[in-house]
Amino acid sequence: MNSIPKRILIVGGVAGGATCAARARRLCETCEIVVFERGPHVSFANCGLPYFVGDVIPSEANLLVASPDLFARRFNIEVHTETEVIGLDRHARRIEVRDLRTGAVRPEPYDALVLATGAQPVRPPLPGIDLPGIHVLRTIPDSRGIKAAVAHAKRVVLVGGGFIGLEMAENLVGLGLEVTLLELADQVLPPLDPEMATYAAERLKTHGVSLRLGEGVEAFDKHPEHGLNLRTSKGGTIAADLVILGIGVRPESGLAAAAGLELGAFGGIRVDEYMRTSDAAIWAVGDVVEVKNRVTGEWQLVPLAGPANRQGRVAATAILHHFECSDGTPPPLKFEGVLGTAVCEVFGLTIACTGANEKVLRRAGMDYDKVYLHPGHHASYFPGAKPIHIKLLFSRTDGRILGAQAVGELDVARRIDVIATAMMQGATVFDLEDLELCYAPQFGAAKDPVNLAGMIAANHLRGDLSLAAWEALTETTALLVDVRSEAEFAAGHIPHARNLPLETLRDRLSELPRDREIWLVCGVGQRAYYAYRLLYRAGFNVKVLSGGMQTYRAWMRARD
Amino acid sequence: MNSIPKRILIVGGVAGGATCAARARRLCETCEIVVFERGPHVSFANCGLPYFVGDVIPSEANLLVASPDLFARRFNIEVHTETEVIGLDRHARRIEVRDLRTGAVRPEPYDALVLATGAQPVRPPLPGIDLPGIHVLRTIPDSRGIKAAVAHAKRVVLVGGGFIGLEMAENLVGLGLEVTLLELADQVLPPLDPEMATYAAERLKTHGVSLRLGEGVEAFDKHPEHGLNLRTSKGGTIAADLVILGIGVRPESGLAAAAGLELGAFGGIRVDEYMRTSDAAIWAVGDVVEVKNRVTGEWQLVPLAGPANRQGRVAATAILHHFECSDGTPPPLKFEGVLGTAVCEVFGLTIACTGANEKVLRRAGMDYDKVYLHPGHHASYFPGAKPIHIKLLFSRTDGRILGAQAVGELDVARRIDVIATAMMQGATVFDLEDLELCYAPQFGAAKDPVNLAGMIAANHLRGDLSLAAWEALTETTALLVDVRSEAEFAAGHIPHARNLPLETLRDRLSELPRDREIWLVCGVGQRAYYAYRLLYRAGFNVKVLSGGMQTYRAWMRARD
Ligand SMILES: Cc1cc2nc3c(=O)[nH]c(=O)nc-3n(C[C@H](O)[C@H](O)[C@H](O)COP(=O)(O)OP(=O)(O)OC[C@H]3O[C@@H](n4cnc5c(N)ncnc54)[C@H](O)[C@@H]3O)c2cc1C
Ligand SMILES: Cc1cc2nc3c(=O)[nH]c(=O)nc-3n(C[C@H](O)[C@H](O)[C@H](O)COP(=O)(O)OP(=O)(O)OC[C@H]3O[C@@H](n4cnc5c(N)ncnc54)[C@H](O)[C@@H]3O)c2cc1C
Ligand SMILES: CC(C)(COP(=O)(O)OP(=O)(O)OC[C@H]1O[C@@H](n2cnc3c(N)ncnc32)[C@H](O)[C@@H]1OP(=O)(O)O)[C@@H](O)C(=O)NCCC(=O)NCCS
Ligand SMILES: CC(C)(COP(=O)(O)OP(=O)(O)OC[C@H]1O[C@@H](n2cnc3c(N)ncnc32)[C@H](O)[C@@H]1OP(=O)(O)O)[C@@H](O)C(=O)NCCC(=O)NCCS
Repeated sequence: MNSIPKRILIVGGVAGGATCAARARRLCETCEIVVFERGPHVSFANCGLPYFVGDVIPSEANLLVASPDLFARRFNIEVHTETEVIGLDRHARRIEVRDLRTGAVRPEPYDALVLATGAQPVRPPLPGIDLPGIHVLRTIPDSRGIKAAVAHAKRVVLVGGGFIGLEMAENLVGLGLEVTLLELADQVLPPLDPEMATYAAERLKTHGVSLRLGEGVEAFDKHPEHGLNLRTSKGGTIAADLVILGIGVRPESGLAAAAGLELGAFGGIRVDEYMRTSDAAIWAVGDVVEVKNRVTGEWQLVPLAGPANRQGRVAATAILHHFECSDGTPPPLKFEGVLGTAVCEVFGLTIACTGANEKVLRRAGMDYDKVYLHPGHHASYFPGAKPIHIKLLFSRTDGRILGAQAVGELDVARRIDVIATAMMQGATVFDLEDLELCYAPQFGAAKDPVNLAGMIAANHLRGDLSLAAWEALTETTALLVDVRSEAEFAAGHIPHARNLPLETLRDRLSELPRDREIWLVCGVGQRAYYAYRLLYRAGFNVKVLSGGMQTYRAWMRARD
Repeated sequence: MNSIPKRILIVGGVAGGATCAARARRLCETCEIVVFERGPHVSFANCGLPYFVGDVIPSEANLLVASPDLFARRFNIEVHTETEVIGLDRHARRIEVRDLRTGAVRPEPYDALVLATGAQPVRPPLPGIDLPGIHVLRTIPDSRGIKAAVAHAKRVVLVGGGFIGLEMAENLVGLGLEVTLLELADQVLPPLDPEMATYAAERLKTHGVSLRLGEGVEAFDKHPEHGLNLRTSKGGTIAADLVILGIGVRPESGLAAAAGLELGAFGGIRVDEYMRTSDAAIWAVGDVVEVKNRVTGEWQLVPLAGPANRQGRVAATAILHHFECSDGTPPPLKFEGVLGTAVCEVFGLTIACTGANEKVLRRAGMDYDKVYLHPGHHASYFPGAKPIHIKLLFSRTDGRILGAQAVGELDVARRIDVIATAMMQGATVFDLEDLELCYAPQFGAAKDPVNLAGMIAANHLRGDLSLAAWEALTETTALLVDVRSEAEFAAGHIPHARNLPLETLRDRLSELPRDREIWLVCGVGQRAYYAYRLLYRAGFNVKVLSGGMQTYRAWMRARD
């Protein structure tokens, strides 16, 4: 078929690169496929590193999903580890590689080149940043370094409250360390909105993590007893035996930039939906590329393993199509953008999200609305139901789902997966009402949490429920009516709220004003909705505070 | 608004009826809403009954989701328990009800009537069927009867291997009873295909249930020591202290039939997509109606709580729309059919399914294909990954997903929920390839099991993978090549298979025939696919046995 074997070179041999190589071999038995990897390992499980540090994953061997030897035997793919690609000559279709063991440099010609160089952890140029004891976590050697340091450390400071920071907090506490988490923003987990992130923050604190929000590190000094002293943006100092930076990653797009490939505003490589760069013989995949957000249409960086794997598969398919089909048909696989579905667990709490959050929607100027709910993860009559706190964002215009965030102990990823699947198909909140999901007592409810999210949002859009804005709670002139029982009200309520239990409401309509807006609140929003229907039908001017006291408390925590 | 209050009468006060009543009140504050329930309870959790019998749900009170008193206080709905509706006069728009405590009969006029009478467990007219000790399980009194009998029983026979039979088996074994399960079909769990049902059968046997497939009960006699003696279709006899029949339900459509409402072929009430019967003033919801299968378009009975709840909501909405809007617009909510998504757990094994199975597709004459896979429920490098056995059915013509079945210990419902959600949106297997699902080591994989199912099916449809039919395994003249390692092969293989490990294949092409079809098999199907790509590209005539030895064993078990 292919008389002169085509040469596919792949730079970077982990998620995106390794997948691309394996897929390319499946599509072409005669191509020459070569992977260059700067580090000592290919195909390793970066995502497992925090758990390797925490001894949950017992051995390094577990992290090695595939070895160079397996690549050779199974896929007939040549893998060069400890080999860095240091130059790219697009016109000659040639890269320059350096064997890091010998220092020898050689050129390697290609017919197709794949840049799967990933991203580098950010190391900000702060005073003292190069002192010993300041780590990042991206590779197996990084994790070895942290494990070695942890063995005789007592106090650790984690800088950055993203997914990796939280996973590290859990694992280090598990190892018996004193953990401080510094986060410059006033919330952890930037993919969530602040009030949803508070559930994770609470959980961290409950498990002994000293969480310092709105505080960043400004400099590092040596500390006489502990190795390091951090100076923070609030003027404080923290002594630490060990510091781990988890403040994000930067696409490793240096090669591409030097070669004049088009980059995006965030420094990632620009690619089309077949993962092809601005050079027709070069493809790029994984953390090094910018991707289109499926909700806002904006370019962004989404450094996650799922997209990297899919992109690798798409790129390989496009390359082989490029080699074999010259009839102008497009390659059979596309990468059409990301939702940003993500999940993380911290001390038994699962936090998951998909699509855009409010911050993103506001920035993109989209006309959205939101509901909150707190259903049990399964039917309440079956023992062990745990609440899932859900926030659903949707278009005010047509009900299209724009994003969702969920936090809870059990079956959280399941609900976000369902919503992400619906979103991939362009579904609306009206579609969520109708979903037919698994129900048996230990697995869900006849009205699943996702159905309920859809029902509440759909009621709102159909005009059967009108929602008040939590943001306006402090300024509103509306009368706040709490429809919970007297006992619940007595145990804690919103200042100035008046208590009128739902079950007495029909007899007490005369106590309510007809000339003033009324905002209803209850435990989670359901009784307030029932009260809303009653009062609305009786001619009152009413609104509901979605999510009830549970959401109120989350909002308050987010303000502290 | 409504000057003369409209009267909505609802017959049956559990899943469909109670939801309909509550929703009707939310939509109309002034309507008179009355629920008639023959039994002593409304709004109870039928689905919890097996677990109440098994003491997992500790008290009867847990099962009562809402009481008549709550209905009165919260919803201003009148509930008459122990009141049977015994007649329906459509022309006079009047029902006849009997107070079962006093025997008094009275008429009740309606503007809208809802039949939510559910279904009755089937009690076949066998000799001895009325002997004491033969139970069914539908109501709280039923469960009390079983609990009382269980207290001094040792040997139980369950007749029928559907969801309820399996849940009862688990609960009764949990109470220390000797359990025999008789099932006339040659598989348990009719919603699954036989080879998938074998996983559940195995699990039952491992936990000590004496499972007798292909064997039904033909008669009951008294037994001197145990209360009962069963005679079976295979000529055997079984002594039992207690028998529980779980052989399905029959729609309780007697009232509707007597009144001349249109019924379907299965005896369920025919309704339109607004749940309206052939009488414009009568709606029907829940187990008593027939529903359209979303995959085949055929009418069927789907006695499940989720659809019953949604239908109740749709009917209430339609009724209020009927009362309030005379402008010819359709009601805002529709019920557009069912997938039949269902789940059940037995001894730690979760079994879930959605859409059509092969039996149904064959009967409907649909052009389908199928793949099997057995991925871990999360990344293999993280401790504790458990396999999920998945069968995916899809249209051969356009890739539309037609059904899925999954069995495993963890996160099974999640995968079926995702597929059900995709199906609700009319998705194809190509859409499954692209889904962006939650991934962190303990929650999934960079290529989620659902992505993999989509990838395999899509490869097949795109012509990148050709699948052999397990059904033809015994007759095929193809050469069977097992590409697992020698050690794996030695530990057990398909008769007549030849072993050529994947990793040696490239060097041994000369050992393979070019004039004979080759069928490839491995552990789960993945290495066989890799071998397929290699051999296909080398010009061989190859096919893959989807699901590998794991599926082979399931097929063999299903044949026994
Ligand atoms: C600690 C940690 C936890 C994570 N957890 C999750 C999670 O739970 N879920 C999730 O979805 N994602 C997670 N991620 C992110 C995920 O690992 C990445 O998105 C994914 O690995 C990106 O794949 P990639 O192929 O683009 O880059 P990488 O996996 O980083 O691979 C790029 C490779 O290219 C090599 N390279 C770079 N430049 C050169 C060069 N010039 N020459 C040769 N080689 C070069 C690098 O050495 C590197 O090995 C986690 C990441 C980390 C670090
Ligand atoms: C043991 C068991 C376990 C189950 N497990 C599950 C599960 O895990 N998941 C799932 O989805 N589904 C499950 N189901 C099915 C689910 O409970 C039913 O689909 C659902 O209850 C149907 O609701 P319905 O309102 O149509 O009927 P029902 O809930 O049966 O209610 C009908 C009511 O109408 C009353 N009635 C009938 N005729 C009259 C009359 N003439 N006058 C007055 N009242 C009348 C009856 O007394 C009955 O209470 C289970 C069912 C049982 C029995
Ligand atoms: C190991 C590695 C190279 C394998 O790449 P891969 O072969 O593309 O990926 P998988 O092992 O998941 O297998 C997927 C392939 O097998 C096929 N497959 C999987 N199970 C199958 C089955 N049961 N039957 C048939 N085919 C199957 C899929 O269709 C797919 O092939 P395709 O892309 O040609 O359609 C790559 O996954 C890797 O490097 N992983 C570790 C790095 C990483 O991802 N890190 C970040 C996350 S921690
Ligand atoms: C108890 C029962 C009568 C309640 O009926 P219901 O009020 O329709 O149902 P739910 O309690 O699930 O509440 C759903 C309603 O509250 C709304 N709701 C729920 N949570 C809400 C929240 N946090 N904020 C606002 N609204 C909320 C929903 O939108 C829905 O209202 P809608 O139908 O008008 O849109 C009924 O569920 C029942 O009888 N259940 C037990 C019987 C049964 O189902 N058995 C079979 C399964 S075991």
